[in-house]
Amino acid sequence: MLELLPAPDVAHLLESSPPQSRSELWELIDDQSEGDVLQELSDEIQSQFLRTMDAEEVAAAAAGMDVDDVADMLQQLSEPVLQEVLDSMTLQDRTRVEQILNYADDTAGGLMNTDAITVRPPHTMDVVLRYLRRHSEIPEMTDNLIVVNRADEFIGLLPLSTLLVSDPHATVREMMVTDVEAIPAAMHDSEVASLFERHDLVSAPVIDQHGKLLGRITIDDVVDVIREDADHSLMSMAGLDEDEDTFAPVMATTPRRAIWLGINLLTAFLASGVINMFQDTLEKVVALAVLMPIVASMGGVAGTQTLTVIVRGLALGQIGHSNRNWLIVREVTVGLINGILWSLVVAVAASLWFQDPLIGLIIAAAMVINLLMAALAGTIIPLTLKRFKIDPALAGSVVLTTVTDVTGFLSFLGLATIFYA
Amino acid sequence: MLELLPAPDVAHLLESSPPQSRSELWELIDDQSEGDVLQELSDEIQSQFLRTMDAEEVAAAAAGMDVDDVADMLQQLSEPVLQEVLDSMTLQDRTRVEQILNYADDTAGGLMNTDAITVRPPHTMDVVLRYLRRHSEIPEMTDNLIVVNRADEFIGLLPLSTLLVSDPHATVREMMVTDVEAIPAAMHDSEVASLFERHDLVSAPVIDQHGKLLGRITIDDVVDVIREDADHSLMSMAGLDEDEDTFAPVMATTPRRAIWLGINLLTAFLASGVINMFQDTLEKVVALAVLMPIVASMGGVAGTQTLTVIVRGLALGQIGHSNRNWLIVREVTVGLINGILWSLVVAVAASLWFQDPLIGLIIAAAMVINLLMAALAGTIIPLTLKRFKIDPALAGSVVLTTVTDVTGFLSFLGLATIFYA
Repeated sequence: MLELLPAPDVAHLLESSPPQSRSELWELIDDQSEGDVLQELSDEIQSQFLRTMDAEEVAAAAAGMDVDDVADMLQQLSEPVLQEVLDSMTLQDRTRVEQILNYADDTAGGLMNTDAITVRPPHTMDVVLRYLRRHSEIPEMTDNLIVVNRADEFIGLLPLSTLLVSDPHATVREMMVTDVEAIPAAMHDSEVASLFERHDLVSAPVIDQHGKLLGRITIDDVVDVIREDADHSLMSMAGLDEDEDTFAPVMATTPRRAIWLGINLLTAFLASGVINMFQDTLEKVVALAVLMPIVASMGGVAGTQTLTVIVRGLALGQIGHSNRNWLIVREVTVGLINGILWSLVVAVAASLWFQDPLIGLIIAAAMVINLLMAALAGTIIPLTLKRFKIDPALAGSVVLTTVTDVTGFLSFLGLATIFYA
Repeated sequence: MLELLPAPDVAHLLESSPPQSRSELWELIDDQSEGDVLQELSDEIQSQFLRTMDAEEVAAAAAGMDVDDVADMLQQLSEPVLQEVLDSMTLQDRTRVEQILNYADDTAGGLMNTDAITVRPPHTMDVVLRYLRRHSEIPEMTDNLIVVNRADEFIGLLPLSTLLVSDPHATVREMMVTDVEAIPAAMHDSEVASLFERHDLVSAPVIDQHGKLLGRITIDDVVDVIREDADHSLMSMAGLDEDEDTFAPVMATTPRRAIWLGINLLTAFLASGVINMFQDTLEKVVALAVLMPIVASMGGVAGTQTLTVIVRGLALGQIGHSNRNWLIVREVTVGLINGILWSLVVAVAASLWFQDPLIGLIIAAAMVINLLMAALAGTIIPLTLKRFKIDPALAGSVVLTTVTDVTGFLSFLGLATIFYA
C-alpha cells in the first residue's frame, strides 16, 4: 500500500506517526524511494533517519533528489560522513552540491537549485524552441528561461509564456524581460520569501556578488520557508522550536521543555520575592492574597496581545523607525482605555465581595498601572530585542510576563500597604 | 515616487502605515493603479478603502483585477453596493465573478480563477502551439494546459514543459498526464493548501461535482492561505484575529482586545474564588500567599507548551484517532518528569527560604499535580474543541489557563490546609 502512495504523502504519514510506527514504516519503504521521501521530511525527522544510514545509503538516496535538498540533508551529517558521501558522488553532482554548501542554509544561496535553463540574447525564438526540444524534460517549476551573456552574467528573463506566443523569428533580446532583479545569493531566506509573496513569483534567478548566475529558487522551497517563518513565532512564544517534531519521543522533548520551565521558575521566584516584601500587609488584609493574581493575570494577557501584534508585524517587515512611535502610543492608549474599563468592573466586584470600597479602589488603580506597563513592555521589549538581534518571539514572552507579574504584585500590594498601613 | 513602485510594494507600504499616512498615501495613488493595489491588500485594510469608494469607482478598480480577487473584494461590500457594482460590469466579467461568488471565500471555488487555457485530446502539439500563438498573452502562472472533453469535463493536464519538448506530431491524448486529480470546488482552502504544499503544485484545475472544469487555482493565492492559516494559530492564542491590521486605529482595536480581557477577568475571578476558600489557612501561613503564584505559573507555562504543540499538529493535519492516545501519554510522561525535576528544585528553595521543610513538600506535591493536569488539559482541551468544531487555538488558551490556575491554587492551598490545620 505504501508503494502506491506518492512520496509527499508517505512523508506526511511518517511525520504523523509516533516513534515506533515511524521506524516500522521507514523499514517498509524500498531503497529507491528513500531519497524522494527524505527530501519531503522536516529537518528534525530527516536527521533521525539519517543517523541510521551509512554514507553509501545516504549517497544512494541523494541520487534522485534536488541539489538544494541534498545540500540541506548533508548539512545535518557529521563532517566525516559528509566527506564520505561527497566522495561517493559523481564529480558533476559533487561540484553542484559543494557550490550550495558554500552558502548558509537560511540564505538564497542555500535555497537555490542549479537546474536553470539559460539562453543567450542573439538567438531567435525558433532556435530556443529547438534547443528546448533537445531536452528530454524541462526541470519542474520552469516558468522562465534565464538570459545570460557570454560571461554567464544575468541579463534578464524569457518567460515560457512569451516564448510560446512570440513570432518564431523574434530574438531573445527583443522579447526578454529586463526589469526584473536577480536575487543575491547572500539574501536572507525570509527576505526571499517576501519577494516571492509580493511579486507572485514561481521562480527567480540567483546571482553572486559579481552578477554571475548561480542558479534559481523555486516557489516550492519558498513555501517551506513561509511555513517555517510563520510557525516560528507561534512555537517560540511557548519556548519551542519551529522544527519541533509533534511526535518526538519523551526523552527528546523533556529536556527542551525543562529549560523553558526552569527559566519561568526563576522569574516566578522573582515575582514571589516581590510578594514577600509585603508579608505584613498580607497578614493584615488576607483579601489581598485572594485578589492579587487578578492584577497579574490581566497584565499578562494584555501584554501578550500587544507582544503578539508586534512580533507578527516585525515578522512581516511592517515595523520600522517611522511607525514604531505611533505603535507605542496606540498600544498605551488601548491599554489605558481597557485598563479604565475593566478596573471599574473589578472595583465594583471587589468592593461588593469584600464589603470594602478601599480594596476596590486599590485593585482598580493597580490594574490601570499594570495594563499601561503591559502595553509599554509589549511594544518596547520586542522592538529592543529585535534591535539587538535577539529573537523577539522567544525572549519576549519570558521578559514580558516577568514585567507584568512584578508590576502587578508591586503596584497592588504597594498601594495596599500605603492605604492600610 | 509612488508611481514608480510596483503595486505589491505600494500595498506593503500602505499596510505598514498608521491610519493618517495611510489615507494620505491612498489619495496619492492614481485611479488606474487602485485596482492593482487593492487586490494586494489584506481583507481588513481593503475594506477600509472600499468604504470610501462608490460603486462606480469599485467597478473601475475591479476592471484590471483577477476574477477571484474581484470576488473576494465584492464579498466585503453591502448587498446593494454589490449589486450596483455587478450591474456596471460587462456581461462576461459579471458571469465569471458570479460563478465564484457562489462558493464560500474559504473553499477551492472561492480561490479559483477562470483564466485556464483548455485543449482537447485529439489535437497535435503543433496545433496546440499554433493555438497558443494566437493568444496575445498567456495567463500568469500557467504551467499546464488543461485537457477537457467536449462536455468540458476534466480529463488531464498537458504541462507546458511537455509541450515544449514533445514531437510536434504527437497528440494531446498521447502526451497528457492523467494521474492527477482535479480539486472539487467545495474543498476547504486549507486542504487545498496542503495539496499544493505536498505535491509542489504551481496551479491545479477545479471541477464541480459532475467533473466539469470550473477554473484553476494558482500558487500565489495558495501562499496567502498558508500565511493566513499559520498566522491564525499565533494570533488566536492571544485572542486576536489573523486579519488584525497591525496599524488599526485605537477605536477599532480596543473593543476586540476588551472582550478577551473580559473573558480573562471572569476566569481570574474563578481562580480568586478558589483562593478565597482558603482564607483561614492563608492567615495562618502567609508564606503560602508568597509561593502560590509559582505553582499556577508553572502549570500555565507547561500547559501552553503542550497546547501549542497540539494546535500546530492539528493545523498541519498530523493528529487523528490513531495517534491521539500516544500523544496524551507522551505529554503526561513529559509533565511527570518535568514536574518531579522542578518540584525538587522548588522544594529545596522554598524550604530554605521559609526555614520550613513542610512548605517545601507541599509546593513540590502541588507542582507535580499541576504539571500533570497541565499536560492532560493541554492535549484533551484542543482535541475536544476540535471535535466540536470550536477553534482550539482561540478557546484553548482561555480554558487551559483557567484549569491550571484553579488546579494550582486548589492543590497547593488544599494540601497546606490539610497539613497546617
